[in-house]
Amino acid sequence: MTIGFIGLGIMGRPMAKNLIKAGYKLAVYDKYAKFDDIVALGAATASSNKEVAAQNEVIITMLPNSPHVKEAILGSDGVIEGISAGKIVVDMSSIAPAASREVGEALKARGAAFLDAPVSGGEPKAIDGTLAIMVGGDQKSFDTLKPVLEKMGSSVTLVGDIGSGNVTKLANQIVVALNIAAVSEAFVLAAKAGVDPVKVFDAIKGGLAGSTVMNAKVPMILDGNFKPGFRTELHVKDLQNALDTAHALNVPVPLTAAVMETLQALTVDGLAASDHSAIVRYYEKLAKIEVRR
Amino acid sequence: MTIGFIGLGIMGRPMAKNLIKAGYKLAVYDKYAKFDDIVALGAATASSNKEVAAQNEVIITMLPNSPHVKEAILGSDGVIEGISAGKIVVDMSSIAPAASREVGEALKARGAAFLDAPVSGGEPKAIDGTLAIMVGGDQKSFDTLKPVLEKMGSSVTLVGDIGSGNVTKLANQIVVALNIAAVSEAFVLAAKAGVDPVKVFDAIKGGLAGSTVMNAKVPMILDGNFKPGFRTELHVKDLQNALDTAHALNVPVPLTAAVMETLQALTVDGLAASDHSAIVRYYEKLAKIEVRR
Repeated sequence: MTIGFIGLGIMGRPMAKNLIKAGYKLAVYDKYAKFDDIVALGAATASSNKEVAAQNEVIITMLPNSPHVKEAILGSDGVIEGISAGKIVVDMSSIAPAASREVGEALKARGAAFLDAPVSGGEPKAIDGTLAIMVGGDQKSFDTLKPVLEKMGSSVTLVGDIGSGNVTKLANQIVVALNIAAVSEAFVLAAKAGVDPVKVFDAIKGGLAGSTVMNAKVPMILDGNFKPGFRTELHVKDLQNALDTAHALNVPVPLTAAVMETLQALTVDGLAASDHSAIVRYYEKLAKIEVRR
Repeated sequence: MTIGFIGLGIMGRPMAKNLIKAGYKLAVYDKYAKFDDIVALGAATASSNKEVAAQNEVIITMLPNSPHVKEAILGSDGVIEGISAGKIVVDMSSIAPAASREVGEALKARGAAFLDAPVSGGEPKAIDGTLAIMVGGDQKSFDTLKPVLEKMGSSVTLVGDIGSGNVTKLANQIVVALNIAAVSEAFVLAAKAGVDPVKVFDAIKGGLAGSTVMNAKVPMILDGNFKPGFRTELHVKDLQNALDTAHALNVPVPLTAAVMETLQALTVDGLAASDHSAIVRYYEKLAKIEVRR
């Protein structure tokens, strides 16, 4: 199986490296980023997205958002111009489910299969090959690609038809954003009430209030350390896709909309590149107190 | 050490039983509930809250909310009328921190000590003696009472001065309510988008979106089982105390206020006695879909 890998940014780069390390014959391409280091590891390359598709059986894309995926696959000199029947395109970007379905239908018209397979876990887990990968698409293509995806992730789950991977990712991002907002409101209130936040953390983390977000983010908040991790601006993108999807389906998500406004306020305050745990900064600013050790 | 135990409801009853089982000499009293079964286990009794205080060295109260605690301790024939210097009152009810401080100051004026020691874990953990107990008060009283509290809870933490136990409990309840709302928005959106919620659960529970709430409540939601657990009406009480505390301290908690309105809507729909995971019912009704297996 020959694999073409398009998109060599913070996430795509270590994911491609893990495929090379696993012995896959890889061709890499990025219209905008440099990728000499990946070629130096033994990867082939190509001169366009179209050529990547023409020269490989499987084409993986890892790009920032829906417009970039649509440009790389459906645009001029795009994947769709080089594709042919029997090939499989796997988009591992986190994009709007509606965009996944649009791309999937266009590829199906050329006889190619499509999987949307967004990931969760960020750069550290991309490097370690331990991402959680949520896949939408047909069972046959999933079975074919599963061994490849398992080189990049420790959890690879087929969740439904095309678009379902990104729906699942949006559900994930809603929960994460709201769980960060939850600990933010709780800890800012406790701090303003004069209770040591370290003791609050110790007292409640083992009970029903416990969460992976609490364990991962409260220590960062207590240290005033907002180094990403996962950047606020990426969470803005994901929640915009969640709100667009919810509105298209007439699903009211009032708390998601509210936390999106919180993220927008952080952007105004120059925190777009900070970790999303900076949500607490919004509340700290309002209450004029910091939740610190 | 002789212990008087006031308040023999759903929580107080098993907590008192655990103290008797541990060999403590207990006197029990409840102005409103029957408690013949506890006396049958060997407990002494009294004719009023005042008498409980007069006849015992430690007085524990376990009552529904601030007004009940203020009535039992500060009211006519109350604990304060029977108290004397050197005794310790431990209120294990979940009440407003301001009420804890008011009661604590009144008792201090009589030379008695006070701890606020609300619990988390509900009836099952009260029965098992594995509650999480968050204590506010002085170190000396805490050290004296710790062996007693450890008969009722598996985690007993001194978090700060009087009132701090209840501040910590409110922080806990804010996080729990918002984490339930988070999974509700996420899973209703995923279900409306046509993705199997069981697969969404399997795909995201192990990642950053994972939480004790997700593990405990999503299976109940998938089964349509809203048997408490923790009743919605009790969470209304706790969030009212959280909002009162936040407003008194000028701490904006917009998402807590929003989830409180959700709980109010459940009350209108006759779900006050349902488990608080019924928050999902609010979203299901709005989106006209159920998140079920």
